[in-house]
Amino acid sequence: MPDTIVIALSYDGAPFAGYQIQPDRETVQGRLEGALATVLGGEVRTTCAGRTDAGVHARGQVVSYPATGEEPDDLESMRRSLDALSGERISVNNVRRAVEGFSARHSALAREYRYRLVPGAIRPVFLEGYAWWTRCRLDAVAMRQAGSVLVGEHDFASFCVAEAAREKETTRTIERIDVWPERELGEHCLVVTVVGRSFLHSMVRIIVGTLVEVGRGRRDPGSTVAVLEARRRDAADRTAPAEGLTLWHVDYPSEVWLP
Amino acid sequence: MPDTIVIALSYDGAPFAGYQIQPDRETVQGRLEGALATVLGGEVRTTCAGRTDAGVHARGQVVSYPATGEEPDDLESMRRSLDALSGERISVNNVRRAVEGFSARHSALAREYRYRLVPGAIRPVFLEGYAWWTRCRLDAVAMRQAGSVLVGEHDFASFCVAEAAREKETTRTIERIDVWPERELGEHCLVVTVVGRSFLHSMVRIIVGTLVEVGRGRRDPGSTVAVLEARRRDAADRTAPAEGLTLWHVDYPSEVWLP
Repeated sequence: MPDTIVIALSYDGAPFAGYQIQPDRETVQGRLEGALATVLGGEVRTTCAGRTDAGVHARGQVVSYPATGEEPDDLESMRRSLDALSGERISVNNVRRAVEGFSARHSALAREYRYRLVPGAIRPVFLEGYAWWTRCRLDAVAMRQAGSVLVGEHDFASFCVAEAAREKETTRTIERIDVWPERELGEHCLVVTVVGRSFLHSMVRIIVGTLVEVGRGRRDPGSTVAVLEARRRDAADRTAPAEGLTLWHVDYPSEVWLP
Repeated sequence: MPDTIVIALSYDGAPFAGYQIQPDRETVQGRLEGALATVLGGEVRTTCAGRTDAGVHARGQVVSYPATGEEPDDLESMRRSLDALSGERISVNNVRRAVEGFSARHSALAREYRYRLVPGAIRPVFLEGYAWWTRCRLDAVAMRQAGSVLVGEHDFASFCVAEAAREKETTRTIERIDVWPERELGEHCLVVTVVGRSFLHSMVRIIVGTLVEVGRGRRDPGSTVAVLEARRRDAADRTAPAEGLTLWHVDYPSEVWLP
């Protein structure tokens, strides 16, 4: 039985109509599967850890497919080929083998997203496209307090696009929400880190949009309890823009990897 | 007598044909002086701390001109106007007053440049345009050793464009050269910091080009002594690409600032 090929990649989300393949649009999956078809001499259909929306970046996206047997023994040479064939704004960082039945989506133990905010009046020239410039100060302590309410298992119906909430189970578990200052390319940022096994559609961006309202002082930190309880999208605030979000890292059980 | 207006700005060097104004080209000085002409109702000619080349970035560029008397009392409102009028990829960070006779160029005590390198086989998607991806490993210890030879007062004729070396005094003092690993936007970088009162044309980029040859193992760390002594441009290595370089910070005596 075939083992699984697992590909780790980074991409700048700006030029893409999202991760997922769509006819006549530039997508990350389209580019990667095109590169795979060239390397393997035939098409494969891949599964990814997180289907990022248009404009969302990934530093640690993970993609898998059942090995076809056409892969070279030297997976580093396959990595170099895929990297070159995937084209601009995508980097193929690693190609390895995992056990049969492994799925980048279903085998994930945890997904870490990071959302980069730039507070204050000064335009962050080096982070255009990689952060949300809020143009106002943000109270990180209040945001941390508001975020802590969301940690644990909750019904996140208020924090996902309304159609998704009607269609499926909306209970999820958030393991961790952090709000920390960082310097990136010399600019002062506030980074919101959200970790959980899985997320609803737009969940991280709606959480960040709501925390930013708290950070601006327009919403009380304790009010996130009532937002959770409302179970209605309009109880939460606006969806934070795509460009600030990065799928940072995905965690798998260590025993899935083959030598 | 007029005091001096001092403007601090950041810019992404990519879209510009350099800092210095040129007819029919997009330049930072052209954009800034256009914004100043609008705000002041008349043209002024400015002086800058470091005339960055095409593609070179600035986080801490400083520009000055003798006050015309048309400036508003509220310099923060002038900052906002200049920021909005300077357009894309330029951020006006600060506008303040300094004593009469102050010059962003001649009053500078020290200039700090940082050069961002990305070693290794993995393409840095988030730092395209902000770093030199060398595609090979770099030995930071050897680079640090090679750099330490250049600290102090030396004739840097080997480390500047040949025409400049024929035209003027080429003795300069480097106060500090550091080579340190950093993380930027999740990518592993090696940052070369060079600090000195003033620099010759392309001096920092030729120093970095030479240190990278040391880091690759193609040049002995001790050989920078012989490069200095040769006093010929062809004794040093290639000029590192513009996109990795940022004018980071310029230092002035604290007593020049007016309240």
